[in-house]
Amino acid sequence: MESNRLEQQIKFILEIDKLKTVIRQNFISDGSRRENDSEHSWHMAMMAVVLSEYFEGADVLRTIKMALMHDLVEIYAGDTFAYDEKGYLDKEEREQKAADKLFSLLPPDQEKEFRELWQEFERADTKEAVFAASLDRLQPLLLNSATEGKMWKLQKVTKDKVLKRNEIVFENAPEIIADFVRSKIEHADRNNYLYREE
Amino acid sequence: MESNRLEQQIKFILEIDKLKTVIRQNFISDGSRRENDSEHSWHMAMMAVVLSEYFEGADVLRTIKMALMHDLVEIYAGDTFAYDEKGYLDKEEREQKAADKLFSLLPPDQEKEFRELWQEFERADTKEAVFAASLDRLQPLLLNSATEGKMWKLQKVTKDKVLKRNEIVFENAPEIIADFVRSKIEHADRNNYLYREE
Repeated sequence: MESNRLEQQIKFILEIDKLKTVIRQNFISDGSRRENDSEHSWHMAMMAVVLSEYFEGADVLRTIKMALMHDLVEIYAGDTFAYDEKGYLDKEEREQKAADKLFSLLPPDQEKEFRELWQEFERADTKEAVFAASLDRLQPLLLNSATEGKMWKLQKVTKDKVLKRNEIVFENAPEIIADFVRSKIEHADRNNYLYREE
Repeated sequence: MESNRLEQQIKFILEIDKLKTVIRQNFISDGSRRENDSEHSWHMAMMAVVLSEYFEGADVLRTIKMALMHDLVEIYAGDTFAYDEKGYLDKEEREQKAADKLFSLLPPDQEKEFRELWQEFERADTKEAVFAASLDRLQPLLLNSATEGKMWKLQKVTKDKVLKRNEIVFENAPEIIADFVRSKIEHADRNNYLYREE
């Protein structure tokens, strides 16, 4: 029975390899190509390690787990672009179905744990989820700044939209992080990295 | 001063984006392309979460940190293929120089922490390092099995070499993991996924 448990876990591990083929809108920092979900998740997890001192009271291990798995449902549900209003209409339904399919590969205790971590991330109502959600905003902001707004321009993303997308940072993240994000957006605006409507 | 610290951390976070462009020999599970270091690191970190129950006494957070950052020095030193004997001759020197350059971007306390975690991984002399090193063997084994030995055949990797590469698993990992790795290699051998010398 123990080996059956291990086999289920290995099956899950192999299935999530597909996250490497889910392509996001953002470009990596050299602008050469779009980023995929596994790269984005690794980057967020590293950021959780580096920036943990600012998010007092957040458990770093739980935050990293959320960062690593927050996009797993996109293996079946696809990436919903942050600024795609239409895509967001049925995002929850698509992703719940995907979660059923993916997490049920695991033994029941881990299925429950992983699903709860993902839902906590989606609700963004704990210290860890706010930490992870802030990283999910900050990471693409850094890549867009590094590429002089390559994705923002291609996808016609305005300053207003970026400010709205970062609301959770301004409202819930520590002041030093909120200030940093604000200054990055202002810098991008001054340097014409953002799309401007005519 | 606090904002200067944050700026150093952000600079490091942006620099490590380059890990996404360090290409490994292994193929992702659909065989469509080679894997990069950031994808491999994400996958290993997820495996650490899923398989932690087998590695008793290993701190999961420290193990995940090692998994996330074990290949960072390759940003400057390049990926040294596991079966490249010549490349291994100066691997340590190249990687120490790379570590000097990369980790010094961080504030001194984090420079020290990250460097020590990386060196612990390289020495593989703690429970966490054995856990992480085992995942570093198991992850490519799963990908090679899934692609029917695509990389093994291309790079002429024999069964003997794979067994040798997995010595740390056979000698230090829990029996259930060692047994699993052994059975995967035997299965690959029976199905001609491995290179055979004439």
